[in-house]
Amino acid sequence: MMKPIRLAVLGSTGSIGQQTLDVARRHPDKISIIALTAGENVNLLQKQAAEFKPRFISCRGHNLVCGNSLCLPIEEMARHLDVDIVLVAVPGGAGLSPALAAAGAGKTIALANKECLVAAGEILLAEAKSHGAQIRPVDSEHSAIWQCLTGETSKPEKLILTASGGPFRDYPIEKIESVTPEQALAHPSWKMGKKVTIDSATLMNKGLEVIEAHRLYGIPYERIEVVIHPQSIIHSMAEFADGAVKAQLSPPDMRLPIQYALSYPDRWETPDLPRADWPKISRLDFSAPDFERFPCLKLAIGAGKKGATFPAVLSAADEEAVELFLSRKIKFGDIARLVGKTLEEHIPAGGPSLENIADAENWARQRVSELARSL
Amino acid sequence: MMKPIRLAVLGSTGSIGQQTLDVARRHPDKISIIALTAGENVNLLQKQAAEFKPRFISCRGHNLVCGNSLCLPIEEMARHLDVDIVLVAVPGGAGLSPALAAAGAGKTIALANKECLVAAGEILLAEAKSHGAQIRPVDSEHSAIWQCLTGETSKPEKLILTASGGPFRDYPIEKIESVTPEQALAHPSWKMGKKVTIDSATLMNKGLEVIEAHRLYGIPYERIEVVIHPQSIIHSMAEFADGAVKAQLSPPDMRLPIQYALSYPDRWETPDLPRADWPKISRLDFSAPDFERFPCLKLAIGAGKKGATFPAVLSAADEEAVELFLSRKIKFGDIARLVGKTLEEHIPAGGPSLENIADAENWARQRVSELARSL
Repeated sequence: MMKPIRLAVLGSTGSIGQQTLDVARRHPDKISIIALTAGENVNLLQKQAAEFKPRFISCRGHNLVCGNSLCLPIEEMARHLDVDIVLVAVPGGAGLSPALAAAGAGKTIALANKECLVAAGEILLAEAKSHGAQIRPVDSEHSAIWQCLTGETSKPEKLILTASGGPFRDYPIEKIESVTPEQALAHPSWKMGKKVTIDSATLMNKGLEVIEAHRLYGIPYERIEVVIHPQSIIHSMAEFADGAVKAQLSPPDMRLPIQYALSYPDRWETPDLPRADWPKISRLDFSAPDFERFPCLKLAIGAGKKGATFPAVLSAADEEAVELFLSRKIKFGDIARLVGKTLEEHIPAGGPSLENIADAENWARQRVSELARSL
Repeated sequence: MMKPIRLAVLGSTGSIGQQTLDVARRHPDKISIIALTAGENVNLLQKQAAEFKPRFISCRGHNLVCGNSLCLPIEEMARHLDVDIVLVAVPGGAGLSPALAAAGAGKTIALANKECLVAAGEILLAEAKSHGAQIRPVDSEHSAIWQCLTGETSKPEKLILTASGGPFRDYPIEKIESVTPEQALAHPSWKMGKKVTIDSATLMNKGLEVIEAHRLYGIPYERIEVVIHPQSIIHSMAEFADGAVKAQLSPPDMRLPIQYALSYPDRWETPDLPRADWPKISRLDFSAPDFERFPCLKLAIGAGKKGATFPAVLSAADEEAVELFLSRKIKFGDIARLVGKTLEEHIPAGGPSLENIADAENWARQRVSELARSL
């Protein structure tokens, strides 16, 4: 009998955090929750703490008291000696600091935060490498690729990232410009947080994932293909030197890649996770993405190719623009417009150092809100 | 630089044998052909010998002289000290003896012969195990599963074998009874030998593969599913304890699984093997097999479940019946009828010993031809 994994869940009240606790609930013999953190949702965090009785707890700006759980800064949790795996599900730019702390302490990191890999991927990966920290992807796409690479002795020749195409895949292209937040939040196959859901509707999400895949697996952008696959059953694929392709498939449910990031290299019996029923699935479709319909995808791949602080600007500008869209200050079509304009104007101050990245992000956020006011 | 693999190709003039030599032709630095054997096609064997200059050569009933190649019995080739991998592509029951010789000598066996695994799987696998011989599947389906299992730490929960459905998948069911050999030999997606092509039209081939998969991977019959997948792009799948499914995909080309059986665990750069073009593939379909349309599939699974000498009777009866069909002595629909009748009449003399298997096979062949005469 193995000792349970001692898990810190950073960002436990978000969608990924809650689903992680759902996995922990199913496997109390395998997972012990050591730490929980939240950004704002104190009530839910307290409920979670009452259930899982973590040793450490933290909520931004609050001095929580909850049972025997000690209040601890998030970075200290991430590097705490008694933590085996740090699941980083803190959204946005705020995920970078605890991820770096965990990497510096040589922890295994289950990474659910896209932004820190996109904006500061070189730094995070270098820090992880020099301290022997392993980064395990939680995203279904990167998890799928990781699962396909297990046991292979050499790099793949090509990666194929699948994209559902979101709610506007077949929507009249001239009407996409002015869809509402409600329409954009109605994702056809995945249950996710608001930011990711909007990014899925613009396909910015897929663009960020291309950058992540490039960083995680060292594959040139020219050999990362995005394929529209509306059923979201194939989560991604890897093609090898002999032409063989491996794919990972399942009904869409984030608990599967979350769990794999914890159970790796094993798999845990989880009979209540959904199973693929092939005759019922009946068909899987594939098509090339339409860059005119999804300009954000093109912007993201372009920023990735330019490197330096361009991915950071892309990510921060998008974060700001999505927020403005969700608060109905700009139109859906403005997201790509503002991000594109900001990228165009960006002049990198130098390489992607932490300081340059922070400066570029701040500038990008500010620039997006200025541009939004003058629309 | 690794030394080239010293390969014996048993059955080099058949479809798999020829495609194996095509792989060898592409990788002269990685494969050295040590031995070639043929059943009847002396002319082609002599051409192959002139090209590959093997040390050993053999053709049933012939005392060949060809350059410096020595004539050697096939079993001696299979266990020769200077052979690393024995590719067994001898068709039908004749494949068992060299496969057993190779297993007894602890060779790596690339197994393209279905019948010996179906009829005498327990014996062959036990012999391989006790002499440290590794059996690598060459069939695209079992190769796909093998590729999906690489790096996994535990057995899959379920196997999903895909079947193209052959040329009669959508043919009017009442007309299948009397289709001609020409119609049955027109396989929509794979280029194979005659016997396998007819077996693909009856789905007997898939039934034999279910038995093989059961033997190779130790999965109960209840957890081996056959799914009709007309495009033959997904070659098979494995489902794990957490619900994750892994699939291996590629345009149908036998050179890929043949090469993987030689290159494992590596993959060799082969830019001229076909690549999957996802937007062009466009869709993949799945449906449950129709057991009424394909009674052979049901017969095979039933024989597998019964065990003992039933799989041997199934395989031998089918071999005989297909031969009778190809020489136009029985109708297409008679294949299932004769095999089914023979299985019904079979009373095993005991466990699947080599002697019992040989007796059962002889009896089955004879019984099929008797039954055919009285049709």
